[in-house]
Parts: sequence; structure tokens; C-alpha cells
Amino acid sequence: MAEKRTDRALDRTELIKQTTLELAQELGFTKLSIEAVAARAGVGKHTIYRRWPSKGALFLDALLPADAQALDIPNTGDIEADLRTQTYAAVDLLGRPPFGPLYQALLGEAQHDPSVAAALNERFIGPQAQRVRARLKLAQRQGQVAPELDLDLAFAILSGPLYFQFLIAQEIVTHGYIDRVFSALFAGMRPSP
Amino acid sequence: MAEKRTDRALDRTELIKQTTLELAQELGFTKLSIEAVAARAGVGKHTIYRRWPSKGALFLDALLPADAQALDIPNTGDIEADLRTQTYAAVDLLGRPPFGPLYQALLGEAQHDPSVAAALNERFIGPQAQRVRARLKLAQRQGQVAPELDLDLAFAILSGPLYFQFLIAQEIVTHGYIDRVFSALFAGMRPSP
Repeated sequence: MAEKRTDRALDRTELIKQTTLELAQELGFTKLSIEAVAARAGVGKHTIYRRWPSKGALFLDALLPADAQALDIPNTGDIEADLRTQTYAAVDLLGRPPFGPLYQALLGEAQHDPSVAAALNERFIGPQAQRVRARLKLAQRQGQVAPELDLDLAFAILSGPLYFQFLIAQEIVTHGYIDRVFSALFAGMRPSP
Repeated sequence: MAEKRTDRALDRTELIKQTTLELAQELGFTKLSIEAVAARAGVGKHTIYRRWPSKGALFLDALLPADAQALDIPNTGDIEADLRTQTYAAVDLLGRPPFGPLYQALLGEAQHDPSVAAALNERFIGPQAQRVRARLKLAQRQGQVAPELDLDLAFAILSGPLYFQFLIAQEIVTHGYIDRVFSALFAGMRPSP
């Protein structure tokens, strides 16, 4: 009996998350509301508020878990190629509806709701940064990366220009753009001595 | 007479913008509304809508013109030092209320309203990118910057890690962080040959 209740609660949680993503696509994030999710999912508002304190928290939970594993970094022994492969996968995800526009809306909401920003970093950005750091550390030991490279900065340096393109310039992040960014970052801005 | 009317219209425009910034600070951007601005400024809603199509457009116009000139790039002949000086000024602006939180709210709104993003790029980001490009081009001619450096990418590469820190990690962008980012970008990630 207890098990069945848990199953039903899980199903309801999944139903609420799925409804949230559907409505976000139909209405846009700005017009999305917990009331509308509750009505379409056929649950009470309080059922939602009991688990998610805000629209942003619900939206983050609905959007993020599905695709985070896709961003593993291969290890073929060529650090530049491996980072490129992983970053291609990340921007393919961004370019593929519905994820791209929904992720953009989530990042927008993170500017207004600090709890969304905190959860985003804890669940998505932090783990990605850690994986990039670990892969670079290995490459550094193998002499493929400058020994002075500040590994704590690496994720900001590699992904910053992509987020700039996505959030500020708001242009499509292509594989070609990634190639150009990575080749500039690996070569450095200073002339060779 | 015509001149007086123009003066009065200008004064009213300034009053509306100033009221917008005041209310954005008091209420936060999410709760800011054109209705509230109209009421406090003592003008009709239609007076505002005639000039600004949305809350985001009004907010952008109120926030941006004041501080853009502060971001000129010096030319002392040392490109790294000059870019650092200009970037220190930019992040000092971000760190100083009220500009920082208001600019963050504007960037949040740009994720939901494409017309805000377009105006932001046209009025603020584009001109900054152009100035950085021109300064780097000069440095490239003087042999201070790698001849292969892709100047069209330079602004995204230099400012991307700062926007990452500001919008994604949401940590304070310090002068020390800029120093670390610039030294990694100038040196490059690849080991010296």
C-alpha cells in the first residue's frame, strides 16, 4: 500500500512537471502561472506550492533533470577535440526546441529570483564546471594544457563566450562559432614569442 | 513657443525615466508596471505607451544612456593594461548600486522580450564591442596582439567570462577576477611550445 502511494505521488510530480513544460511552450514563461499548471494538471494549487515555492522553482525542476547527462566529456586523449565534442552536444541541445528557448527563459528568471539562480548553479552549472575542471586537470598532467592555466576559471572562460552569444548577442551558437572560440582560447591573445 | 513645448516634452520624458528607475529600485523589476510609473509621474498611461511599447523598452531607455561613456578604452600603448583599466571601470559600475541590480534585471528581461535584446545590442553592447575591436586592431598592428586573433570574437571572449560570473554564477566580479581572466586569455590554454 505504502509503495502504491509513493508511485502515485511520483506520477503526480511527473505530471505537474510535464504540464509545466507544455504550458511554458504554449504561453511563454512570462504568462506561465502555477494556477494554470494546477488547472491543466487537475491538482490543487497547494499541492504544487507544497513542493515548489515559486513558478521559477517549478520550472527549473521540470526543465533541468532530463538532459544533464548528455554533457559528459569524452576522453580520447585530445583535450581540444574532447571539449569541442562536449560543447557541440551542449549547443545542439540549445539549438533544439523546446530546450533552447525554455533554458533561455530559465536564465532570464534566474536574474529576478535568486533561489532559481542558486538551484541552477547547484544542479546544472556546478556539476558541468566540475567535469570540465577534472578533464582539464588530466590534460594538464599529460602536458596538453598550460601548467599555469587557472583550472577554477576554465569553465567560465570556455562557456562565457557561448553564454554571451546566447544571452546577450542572442545569435545562434553554431559549431563554427565554437571552433573559432576554442582556437582563440587555446592559442591565447598574445603573439607567440 | 515651439521651443518651450519641446523643453516641456523633454522634461516630461526625463521625469518618466527617472520615475521608472526609482520604482524599479523600490519594487523590483518584476513588480514594476507602466501603470505605477504613470501614476507616480502624474502622466497618463497613453503618454508612456506612445513613446515606449513595453515596460522593458521604457526601462532600457531609462537605464542605459547615463553611463555608456564611462567605458572608453584608454590608449597608453599597453593593450593588456588598457583593457584591464576599461574593464575595471565596467565592473565597478556593475558593483555600484543602483546600476548593477538594474542592469541584471534588464538582461533578465532581454531573455523574455526580443525587442529589449535588440535595443540592448544596438545601444550598448554593439558600441562597446566596436571600441574593443578598434583598440585591439591598433594593438595588433603594433605587434602586441597575436596576428591570428579573430577580432570579431574578441569582445565575446573578453566579456563572456565576466557575464558568466555576473549572470550565471552570480558572484561579484572583482578586479582580481578580471586579472585572472585576462592573464589566462592572453597566455592561452595551450602549453608554450
